[in-house]
Amino acid sequence: MEMARIGVTGLAVMGRNLARNLARHGHSVALHNRTSARTKALVEEFGGEGTFIPADTPEAFVAALERPRRLVIMVKAGGPTDAVIDEFAPLLDPGDMIVDGGNANFTDTRRREAALRERGIHFVGTGISGGEEGALHGPSIMPGGSAESYTALGPLLEDIAAKVDGTPCCTHVGPDGAGHFVKMVHNGIEYADMQLIAESYDLLRHAAGLAPAEIAEVFRTWNTGRLESYLIEITAEVLAHTDVATGRPFVDVVLDQAEQKGTGRWTVQTALDLGVPVSGIAEAVFARSVSGHAGLREAAQNLPGPARGPVAGSGLADAVEKALYASKIVAYAQGFHQIQAGSAEYGWDIDLGAMAAIWRGGCIIRARFLDRIRAAYQADPETPTLLTDAHFTEALGDAQDAWREVVGTAARLGIPVPGFSTALAYYDSLRADRLPAALTQAQRDYFGAHTYRRVDRDGSFHTLWGGDRTEVTG
Amino acid sequence: MEMARIGVTGLAVMGRNLARNLARHGHSVALHNRTSARTKALVEEFGGEGTFIPADTPEAFVAALERPRRLVIMVKAGGPTDAVIDEFAPLLDPGDMIVDGGNANFTDTRRREAALRERGIHFVGTGISGGEEGALHGPSIMPGGSAESYTALGPLLEDIAAKVDGTPCCTHVGPDGAGHFVKMVHNGIEYADMQLIAESYDLLRHAAGLAPAEIAEVFRTWNTGRLESYLIEITAEVLAHTDVATGRPFVDVVLDQAEQKGTGRWTVQTALDLGVPVSGIAEAVFARSVSGHAGLREAAQNLPGPARGPVAGSGLADAVEKALYASKIVAYAQGFHQIQAGSAEYGWDIDLGAMAAIWRGGCIIRARFLDRIRAAYQADPETPTLLTDAHFTEALGDAQDAWREVVGTAARLGIPVPGFSTALAYYDSLRADRLPAALTQAQRDYFGAHTYRRVDRDGSFHTLWGGDRTEVTG
Repeated sequence: MEMARIGVTGLAVMGRNLARNLARHGHSVALHNRTSARTKALVEEFGGEGTFIPADTPEAFVAALERPRRLVIMVKAGGPTDAVIDEFAPLLDPGDMIVDGGNANFTDTRRREAALRERGIHFVGTGISGGEEGALHGPSIMPGGSAESYTALGPLLEDIAAKVDGTPCCTHVGPDGAGHFVKMVHNGIEYADMQLIAESYDLLRHAAGLAPAEIAEVFRTWNTGRLESYLIEITAEVLAHTDVATGRPFVDVVLDQAEQKGTGRWTVQTALDLGVPVSGIAEAVFARSVSGHAGLREAAQNLPGPARGPVAGSGLADAVEKALYASKIVAYAQGFHQIQAGSAEYGWDIDLGAMAAIWRGGCIIRARFLDRIRAAYQADPETPTLLTDAHFTEALGDAQDAWREVVGTAARLGIPVPGFSTALAYYDSLRADRLPAALTQAQRDYFGAHTYRRVDRDGSFHTLWGGDRTEVTG
Repeated sequence: MEMARIGVTGLAVMGRNLARNLARHGHSVALHNRTSARTKALVEEFGGEGTFIPADTPEAFVAALERPRRLVIMVKAGGPTDAVIDEFAPLLDPGDMIVDGGNANFTDTRRREAALRERGIHFVGTGISGGEEGALHGPSIMPGGSAESYTALGPLLEDIAAKVDGTPCCTHVGPDGAGHFVKMVHNGIEYADMQLIAESYDLLRHAAGLAPAEIAEVFRTWNTGRLESYLIEITAEVLAHTDVATGRPFVDVVLDQAEQKGTGRWTVQTALDLGVPVSGIAEAVFARSVSGHAGLREAAQNLPGPARGPVAGSGLADAVEKALYASKIVAYAQGFHQIQAGSAEYGWDIDLGAMAAIWRGGCIIRARFLDRIRAAYQADPETPTLLTDAHFTEALGDAQDAWREVVGTAARLGIPVPGFSTALAYYDSLRADRLPAALTQAQRDYFGAHTYRRVDRDGSFHTLWGGDRTEVTG
């Protein structure tokens, strides 16, 4: 009987494309799906692309795998993933590997990894970004789990990953939940990036007064410069598209209520637990949320505000490009800060520059920009924030006048720019010599005796606000 | 043997003051603490204030309570609360009540209530706001739990609560975790309120160029108008205070790193699960977080930016007052939206106007403003957002030019105003005819085939972006 190097169970579009990608790279792939129709369809349609070994039962599937077994599960996150693990784990032997390629919450991955480790099975929570096309043609792959499992799995995953300058967009992220954690933050950054692009579009449309097709040209131009990225590229494509049914700009016929699937929310919730300010991601999640509250928006549509007339003067598009680039630097700095904090909290020892490197290709946020981030961490792996990397500091310095002007213009015209504004506030907060947090601490001491520290000596203090207002040691 | 109407276990400062408040109102109070020294000290020092019945053991404590027993636990949230419940529940009978007056997470309260309900015991998760002073002189009290328990407990709690125009700041919030949920959102709103005050101070200091003592006068004036509130009042007190040791303005000797205890974070995390945009609270939590990242701030202190010179022209203080009032309306609208959503999610049937009413006194956010909110919900209990209440709409319309100017000025001068900016962005998002969320949805369809809806007909659609770009049903 022919044995397979790797197996995929769960043959919806992501699983199917991943299996095809593996087969196309010369790896024999065992196939399994809860209903065999999908297995059969895959073999019938794409059997010529490589060696597929279909299996009707979990037992036959497991029996078809070379040892140590490499079993990839591509099912819905949550309960379905647990169900599949419960089904297959009893059929496996110590040393075998289960790869979860879904969008699991990293805390679930940590729990599953610990439970399976006790049985000698490697559980490899793996972030995979790039959507259907990426899964087929080369995604960005973020595997967690044991170093030992990466020795056995890495070569296959690197084969099917996207390549940038010949380097695969796949590396061992770190133990247990590290891979899914990094994938989560990747998605959070994606939310922020998309929100900043949306604000740029809104400004070009309503402050510069450009038509969607003209804005598409602006994005095309931007895509030849430092903003070159997949998201900028597809923005131009979307804005240039004309709706077939109506002949109107496509963007104008799409309902303006953005949806979300949860990883952006998880990113923010996790960042709050870690004490990392990820305001750019949070504002992006909230902006989608606001857009979806149709009832609220309808009720509020007559609230007073300025008309959105085009502003006099030219150069707004260039100013928006600068605001976008500066805000993007901040959003990524916040996201990388979160990875750094997660890595420290869970002892993952994540190489931040390597994360930027494997995001350069295959994934939704792939961008020329990420090579700058890789270089920044190469230059100083311990840098506390990307903002202080020489290249980014220079870019921020160059952008900031325009950035400030854009935020002011948007405020004046009534165009919401929560992403640009929060990025600027973060930047100005970090560089501030003094923050009004001193007042906040003093208030907390006043109403709750929470104490405060002083600038001129160590210790914790309390002022007797209700008494003679002398200071005592807290 | 003399019996007590109510008992308090956990006699740290909050528990002690609550017990004294009860005794002062003529209720006999059984006292218990893990170590008896605190019990003894309370009786020795404050025994003259009313009838205290000290107990050395849990058994003696429970035996001293009238039936049905009213047992208040005032211990740390989390494990200690569970430990005390586990200790006392076996000593109680069906119909008895355990009141948790700590800052519990409402999900813990729901779990505890369900577990104790099975044993016939009423678990009453109760938010208590007002700090030490409030506990003694009249807090704002937010009890959850069964309606039956409120019949037995309500009169006592209303006795000791703060009064506004003779009305107690206490009402039955709703079943199980409703009380602690509302207290959590109260604290989240408190974060937002404090952040907006901090930004106002920062602008008066660095954009208007006023000294702390002068700013104290501005806040004192504000406190005679629509902003009249405890937090504005104590801001004036803090800013007028001179540090005894150095003779410098007190606010200048306090370390500018704000701390937090977790309820603000919980509020945001819960709002994200409920799909409610609470950006004002989130920015406040992040602002405290940024201030505390000393290493990051030190690294970033030389980032380029404008000098914070005072701006020409007068009237900035008035503009800041308007920006503060408008942003405050938004922050409260977001918080009340969260209570509305939580009430719907958990079937609590919370009376939003009643929440505003019981916050008018006793608690940290007590303010004249809250009576306006009470009136808004009285006028329309189903209003989807406070922003559309006639009074608030008028105030926002009057404030908005100044609000926009203040955000622009802050951006230009490099003064971080994340709270003002996000409030304005929320306002402008809700009133926007079209949001760029349409572009976001189109991008999601492009890279992930997530589909979109159209403005002109029902259904879910997908464009074949990789093919001939025709539209298919999604």
